Amino acid sequence: MVRIALIGAGFIGSVHATNLAEHPEVEFVGVHDLDAPRAAALAARSQTRALDLDQVFDAQSTDAVLIASSTDSHADHLRHAADAGLATLCEKPIDLDLTRANEVVAEIGVPGAPMMVDFNRRFDRDHAELQRSVRSGDIGTVELVQMTSRGPALPPFGYIEASGGQMRDQAVHFFDLARWITGEDPESVFATGSVFTDPRMAHLGDVDTSAATLRMPSGALVQIDCTRRTGYGYDERIEVLGSDGLIESGRHRVGSVVRYGSGRVVGDGLHAGWFERVAPTYRAALDHFLAAITSGAAVGPTLGEALKAQAVAEAATRSLESGRLARISYPVLVSTPAR
Amino acid sequence: MVRIALIGAGFIGSVHATNLAEHPEVEFVGVHDLDAPRAAALAARSQTRALDLDQVFDAQSTDAVLIASSTDSHADHLRHAADAGLATLCEKPIDLDLTRANEVVAEIGVPGAPMMVDFNRRFDRDHAELQRSVRSGDIGTVELVQMTSRGPALPPFGYIEASGGQMRDQAVHFFDLARWITGEDPESVFATGSVFTDPRMAHLGDVDTSAATLRMPSGALVQIDCTRRTGYGYDERIEVLGSDGLIESGRHRVGSVVRYGSGRVVGDGLHAGWFERVAPTYRAALDHFLAAITSGAAVGPTLGEALKAQAVAEAATRSLESGRLARISYPVLVSTPAR
Amino acid sequence: MVRIALIGAGFIGSVHATNLAEHPEVEFVGVHDLDAPRAAALAARSQTRALDLDQVFDAQSTDAVLIASSTDSHADHLRHAADAGLATLCEKPIDLDLTRANEVVAEIGVPGAPMMVDFNRRFDRDHAELQRSVRSGDIGTVELVQMTSRGPALPPFGYIEASGGQMRDQAVHFFDLARWITGEDPESVFATGSVFTDPRMAHLGDVDTSAATLRMPSGALVQIDCTRRTGYGYDERIEVLGSDGLIESGRHRVGSVVRYGSGRVVGDGLHAGWFERVAPTYRAALDHFLAAITSGAAVGPTLGEALKAQAVAEAATRSLESGRLARISYPVLVSTPAR
Amino acid sequence: MVRIALIGAGFIGSVHATNLAEHPEVEFVGVHDLDAPRAAALAARSQTRALDLDQVFDAQSTDAVLIASSTDSHADHLRHAADAGLATLCEKPIDLDLTRANEVVAEIGVPGAPMMVDFNRRFDRDHAELQRSVRSGDIGTVELVQMTSRGPALPPFGYIEASGGQMRDQAVHFFDLARWITGEDPESVFATGSVFTDPRMAHLGDVDTSAATLRMPSGALVQIDCTRRTGYGYDERIEVLGSDGLIESGRHRVGSVVRYGSGRVVGDGLHAGWFERVAPTYRAALDHFLAAITSGAAVGPTLGEALKAQAVAEAATRSLESGRLARISYPVLVSTPAR
Repeated sequence: MVRIALIGAGFIGSVHATNLAEHPEVEFVGVHDLDAPRAAALAARSQTRALDLDQVFDAQSTDAVLIASSTDSHADHLRHAADAGLATLCEKPIDLDLTRANEVVAEIGVPGAPMMVDFNRRFDRDHAELQRSVRSGDIGTVELVQMTSRGPALPPFGYIEASGGQMRDQAVHFFDLARWITGEDPESVFATGSVFTDPRMAHLGDVDTSAATLRMPSGALVQIDCTRRTGYGYDERIEVLGSDGLIESGRHRVGSVVRYGSGRVVGDGLHAGWFERVAPTYRAALDHFLAAITSGAAVGPTLGEALKAQAVAEAATRSLESGRLARISYPVLVSTPAR
Repeated sequence: MVRIALIGAGFIGSVHATNLAEHPEVEFVGVHDLDAPRAAALAARSQTRALDLDQVFDAQSTDAVLIASSTDSHADHLRHAADAGLATLCEKPIDLDLTRANEVVAEIGVPGAPMMVDFNRRFDRDHAELQRSVRSGDIGTVELVQMTSRGPALPPFGYIEASGGQMRDQAVHFFDLARWITGEDPESVFATGSVFTDPRMAHLGDVDTSAATLRMPSGALVQIDCTRRTGYGYDERIEVLGSDGLIESGRHRVGSVVRYGSGRVVGDGLHAGWFERVAPTYRAALDHFLAAITSGAAVGPTLGEALKAQAVAEAATRSLESGRLARISYPVLVSTPAR
Repeated sequence: MVRIALIGAGFIGSVHATNLAEHPEVEFVGVHDLDAPRAAALAARSQTRALDLDQVFDAQSTDAVLIASSTDSHADHLRHAADAGLATLCEKPIDLDLTRANEVVAEIGVPGAPMMVDFNRRFDRDHAELQRSVRSGDIGTVELVQMTSRGPALPPFGYIEASGGQMRDQAVHFFDLARWITGEDPESVFATGSVFTDPRMAHLGDVDTSAATLRMPSGALVQIDCTRRTGYGYDERIEVLGSDGLIESGRHRVGSVVRYGSGRVVGDGLHAGWFERVAPTYRAALDHFLAAITSGAAVGPTLGEALKAQAVAEAATRSLESGRLARISYPVLVSTPAR
Repeated sequence: MVRIALIGAGFIGSVHATNLAEHPEVEFVGVHDLDAPRAAALAARSQTRALDLDQVFDAQSTDAVLIASSTDSHADHLRHAADAGLATLCEKPIDLDLTRANEVVAEIGVPGAPMMVDFNRRFDRDHAELQRSVRSGDIGTVELVQMTSRGPALPPFGYIEASGGQMRDQAVHFFDLARWITGEDPESVFATGSVFTDPRMAHLGDVDTSAATLRMPSGALVQIDCTRRTGYGYDERIEVLGSDGLIESGRHRVGSVVRYGSGRVVGDGLHAGWFERVAPTYRAALDHFLAAITSGAAVGPTLGEALKAQAVAEAATRSLESGRLARISYPVLVSTPAR
């Protein structure tokens, strides 16, 4: 049994809490939140207890910590967890400020226990199968990748304002997937975007619809489209063209019911919300993290990999703002190879 | 060039006329119809000439004859074509009366040239690929066959009245396919049916919706559903389960356009009419017939095979009327093996 | 919170135990099994305790009982649960012997609390959506139903021997679905079957491949094929043709990954085993049962409905053995309407 | 009957010849080719006669001319056809040199008869249905377009050398489709490309794999990927995301046969070659051209529209070579609105 403490009792925190409470290999030692009553309520629902931060980081009673608090607190919690030698699973990003994120990772250096950033799309069953297939050479050399990331509806404005923009918040998942699938660090990015949903997006300097193109050292090209509001549900899709074939991780539907009428065949729709599609990935990420702790398997994405995805997002944001191709520079100290 | 004469200038006749006129290996010598002006008009449209029956059956000027006249004339035309030693492609059935059909085939004996009955579903691209795959052993031993035959709308009542009933008119195509796919002659049939479209069907003793079950000597089972009016288009489907897998010849859609909306995904519909789906089979059947003539390849379905399909339809009609399982007896003289 | 006791700690019992332990509205009071150590082990894994039968049926501490013990014990447990006035969810069948099953249900009469038989296919998301749609009139009047039930591999022989045969064990689920979808009690059944997997099946008088045709009072026809060993996974499919369209509950695949190669497009396969497909239905059935208890919603399938499905299976077995159409007679005392 | 003469007896010329010969509303007056025996042979096969250029452009005997000769001759033939007042359907491009193409179109001015450039993808059944749906407002305002254009195998090197490069030869079809679907003239393009098939491509300064992003005045974004060699067949796909939904013109398969095996479901593949997919578009383009002639319907794409697609390709080529975003400037004189 791995003893895990949770920081953060918001929506994602409570998703983790359920997974921790039900997992047969986890002892869920407790939950901390700045908002103590919220922590207490989640603890009660999850048959565990509320903790203060000293208890969370107490290596006597805790093996691992799961960081699901607000973004601006990630960096500090990561540092404390590293100091305590605890295995750590942290929601992305390390910090919205890439410089600060780099500093924290530099300070941590080579961690004594698995430290993982929860880019949860890696743990989607179909994306993972696609990646495994591509990296095992099933389609030969990768030549072209198409990725589609489309949210069902504009998130609340408060969320948008704090998000760092579409590249840092939404596209960054696919920058990470692009590295993970191809095994390469992109060398340049061109991004362009527009606002179709709400004029306030433009006032924030953000976009709701964007197209990004990554170029890999091998010459492989990656096209990513991101939108915030489809109206028809959560739409995510990846296809990878290689020298020996194409592999696709296709759209998900909520069911397999089909109705045949005059002139048309109507199937079930896509998931109405992002969470319906993404829900299983949190548990799968937890399983991966636990395997790294208990069996010594390599963990991924590491802090270094998370920084790389963030560096791509930073360059993409520059490109979006300038209208020019942006070269991507990666933090020097990071020696983590692409996985 | 094979010199071919056509008998019958109705709808199916004109389909054949177009194919004969365009076929690079065919010299379309002319068309005959009881209704002389109709023959003349079709001949004009097809850049050929109207013929009388003597000209049709004149082996000096004709190599082959295509019989697409009314059902009650098929038997006589077949006999004359056989007498003249002409290769013959005849629309089904040989005769609605199985006894008379048997007699004609008995009189013809072993024909001197390829004589083929146009069970055109054998020439559907997908059904043919399925049959080829099954007969080549791709799915091992056949255990179960499911067939769906559903027309878009009730045919005109005049057609229904002259059709011989749903087993002899519609299901018979699938009795033939069942034999062709499995390579076996069914030994018994159970059929039951209902009327949902028009009460006059019941007065005719006919049904518009039926379920038939064939049993093969090997123990393989075949389920066939036939309906006359779907409202959503022409629906035809076959699946064959074998000891080593399943193969399906699936529904056809008119296109590949898909529309994603809230809660549903809408694809293009099925073909509105039977002809849209079936149109290419007439040309493919003609190609097969020509190959039998010019290269000596075996022709199929032969007259004997057509009789067998008809014998199944006869037994199915008995079962439908009696509510009992019917044993199928085949004409003794037919020695044609299942193909 | 509904206090539920479980009888049976075998495979299905442990599936129920997990659902009971995780359900937020259930207090899982304990588990009983004839094999006491097995009960104790399951109780420990599920954070509950082992019970003797008196504790199970003690209405002071228990609101409801879930019967997942061996088939021959169902009838007695049902009677005891009814005597104690407990809500009851019982695995099918009530008893393999229809006469005994009828007696038990007659003795119970009108139960004081919801009593439900777990025909779990009713709780498949897609089948349920299809039924809801059909019963709400989306496709007009039902004319034809096609059902496919194909297991991936022959079950262990011990299971087969005790199963009562393919009609009573496997097809019975689809007889129940047919009643539930159409809202009609079939009046006759024709069934025929074969053995392809293991000659011992024939010695038992059982079959592994069968085709059954039900006829409804309205004239609607139902074709059901059942096989025991596909080799390609668990294959279940329903389609319902009505006067206003067709609705289909399609095959399930394990994922949405597609690979495009020369001449072929390869998608993910079907579920390897039946349980992968069926797993969520146990939880959904439990939810339905709880709703009947807590909100007074109607429960289904009731004991009477289970008897009806069993009566169809009995007639189908007779037809299979005799090669004749069998009329279906239903127990007189059962007044439960089709639902 | 419209009297049509054909220039060019190569592969595409002979495709047109078959369509002209079979079309019920066309009188196929003859064919011209620089290679006289080739013209004669095609004329014989098509039951028409070989013509010299004077005969082709003789308005006494010809209503319309179809230009399918080598690219460098298009401009001259267009000018002669315009001078003669003949309706003209010309294979793309007008001229590989945009300056010369502009000059010719300027000289022609407002033609006295329909003059159309054969961007045949507009006449694909599914693309056309998508365009009709988008332009009729079914999906609201266009926000994002994804287009995939992938050839099965590298064309012969001689073809590549004369093609003008991937933007001018392959992507240009999709630049035209992008304008046609959105009704907008793109204002900028970013393109990047790589060579994966044959190093000689790089020596030519060409690429075989490219990603292009167009930006429309409305802010709509268009991503296009083009590749020359998939290995799995001809792969073409379009999807358009609007404010009210998504519409997709999906991949085409050669058939609807599906095989279910252990762990996988195998469908028919894509078309092996580009022509199998594209063949029907030539006839549909001819029908459109005839409708413009006989009923006065607007013709499209016009010469002006073809120039616009070419202007986009020119800018895309600049972007590909420079690694920078390229603004697109359109010929001043062209007043043709986007259609």
